[in-house]
Amino acid sequence: MRATVMYGAGDVRVENVPDPRLMNAKDAVVRVTRACICGSDLWPYADMERSETGRPMGHEAIGIVEDVGDEVEAIARGDLVIVPFAVSDGTCPFCHEGLNTACVHVAFFGNNGLNGAQAEALRVPYADGTLFRLDAGEDDALMPSLLTLSDVMGTGHHAASVAGVRPGNSVAVIGDGAVGLCGVIAAKRLGAERIVILGRHEGRTRLARELGATDVIAERGEEALERLRELTSGVGVHAVLECVGTERAIRTAVEIVRPGGAIGRVGVPHYPSIPQAEPLFYANVRVGGGPAPVRAYIDELLPDVLDGRIDPGRVFDRTVDLNGVPEGYRAMADRDAIKVIVRP
Amino acid sequence: MRATVMYGAGDVRVENVPDPRLMNAKDAVVRVTRACICGSDLWPYADMERSETGRPMGHEAIGIVEDVGDEVEAIARGDLVIVPFAVSDGTCPFCHEGLNTACVHVAFFGNNGLNGAQAEALRVPYADGTLFRLDAGEDDALMPSLLTLSDVMGTGHHAASVAGVRPGNSVAVIGDGAVGLCGVIAAKRLGAERIVILGRHEGRTRLARELGATDVIAERGEEALERLRELTSGVGVHAVLECVGTERAIRTAVEIVRPGGAIGRVGVPHYPSIPQAEPLFYANVRVGGGPAPVRAYIDELLPDVLDGRIDPGRVFDRTVDLNGVPEGYRAMADRDAIKVIVRP
Repeated sequence: MRATVMYGAGDVRVENVPDPRLMNAKDAVVRVTRACICGSDLWPYADMERSETGRPMGHEAIGIVEDVGDEVEAIARGDLVIVPFAVSDGTCPFCHEGLNTACVHVAFFGNNGLNGAQAEALRVPYADGTLFRLDAGEDDALMPSLLTLSDVMGTGHHAASVAGVRPGNSVAVIGDGAVGLCGVIAAKRLGAERIVILGRHEGRTRLARELGATDVIAERGEEALERLRELTSGVGVHAVLECVGTERAIRTAVEIVRPGGAIGRVGVPHYPSIPQAEPLFYANVRVGGGPAPVRAYIDELLPDVLDGRIDPGRVFDRTVDLNGVPEGYRAMADRDAIKVIVRP
Repeated sequence: MRATVMYGAGDVRVENVPDPRLMNAKDAVVRVTRACICGSDLWPYADMERSETGRPMGHEAIGIVEDVGDEVEAIARGDLVIVPFAVSDGTCPFCHEGLNTACVHVAFFGNNGLNGAQAEALRVPYADGTLFRLDAGEDDALMPSLLTLSDVMGTGHHAASVAGVRPGNSVAVIGDGAVGLCGVIAAKRLGAERIVILGRHEGRTRLARELGATDVIAERGEEALERLRELTSGVGVHAVLECVGTERAIRTAVEIVRPGGAIGRVGVPHYPSIPQAEPLFYANVRVGGGPAPVRAYIDELLPDVLDGRIDPGRVFDRTVDLNGVPEGYRAMADRDAIKVIVRP
């Protein structure tokens, strides 16, 4: 089959690789009908060291189940399924607590020896626990929004959830990528009154406003902090959704959060420690977050997608076929595109 | 009046200072009947730079109201009151949210130009918001436990509360000082099933067991981590109460917390940043805590003290008069005493 492989920074190729097949009685094989390119794929696209063997890419998909192992019970051939970015067995204590990304059998597509989702097909371990069966047609108009439930919408929701967003709250979203935009949707969904997005890309911040942001701060540094203070009676926001992962982003989060507030981190951290241990302490700020248990969140978010109350599919602004994947990476890295759908 | 003043590391004196008097219409003056020495007082006792003017000491007290300003309404002369370690007006948005230590008028006894509580009397700003009136006699047998509601019991409860301790949880308490011991009480009160205290002082860990600890880890370093893993099926504890504040303590907290778990910090941090940003992220660990809003917690904790369900007064193992305060500091610093009551 054809699949996406990254060989180094900026070097993404689509190649022939062996077809995935059942290796375990709990596996399924899924034919990918929709995948996408993630903001987190841009980290290796920016700095990956050259590799002889390459790295399979992609971890978000919707597809049709082609085959299942003997011990798979809840999923059958022909099912349309969401493939969340992490494998989870659905039965361990962490899965029962709803933290699928800490499953004792956790593995991430494109890592841990697993194929990536930017490909024609995918082997899915622990299919019963990992996959979410949809009652929808393969070309449902909601497909883009449903696809976001494999990662970005669940991740934006996780940021808002661990930051404890409640009705009436003020929320700042750091990052105007797809996760940040989904963070805006999640904050609005949880009843936030003021939603400030920090971002400089006009097309993205315009979309953020349409999705629920009440204010945009395009300034940087001290100027941005001043604007934020003006908007929050000088005290900062109840919740910061940190959707970037840089040292600068976490520092900004610490500076704009209100005493008693919280920071939800969902940007993969590219900093060694959480700065300002003492100011965070004196302000009683909570810091949480990590890889979102999107599998668990689908139950909560799906009804809102189906009823049209949220429309996270709007974060997609380009569609490519597999051959177009390298150009999709370029477009996202150059910020020409927010998020790219891949239709293998 | 007589009051405790610290002039440098190890140099605590009891001196004559001007009597406190009303300076503002919202003030009260309280005659201190019980004060105590706090673990946090030991930080300057260890490393304070020499000062010509000295620093007033003490921030925990119970006393009798001697005088009130014209605008004080809820408190009257003769009332027996708990004096929490922080001043709060009781009316600002943070006070309404129960985070009195972020009050817009917050101030700490012994700091911010305020007298310390290890003294004969104390001026209390915003008396209506700050003081908690007790219906008890001055020599009630519960006095030691009531005194802990001014700081250590509320602080231990804060650690457990921000770490989200729930029935059935496993909890580790780092620190065998009075706050750590109160953390044990708080964890048990919130229904924790396994409560592990990390400490090496036998008298203290014995008391911890009596207060509810199920296990004691006296080992250090890798050995301690191994013991902890054995006790928690290899995954770590749901909640860590970090009651010390050293870099070593926060590192241990990060190492022993379970995925999806939380760290409640109440030890004043003597480290610049929270280590291990990436492992904390991948494990979805929450870190919270800070100066406890003990004023708000009195409502919740007092009934349990009055009914004898908790007995935090047991953390006191020595009583001194004002002249005995310097010896009280020495005893706590040398770990001869856990916590010292001062009866001026």
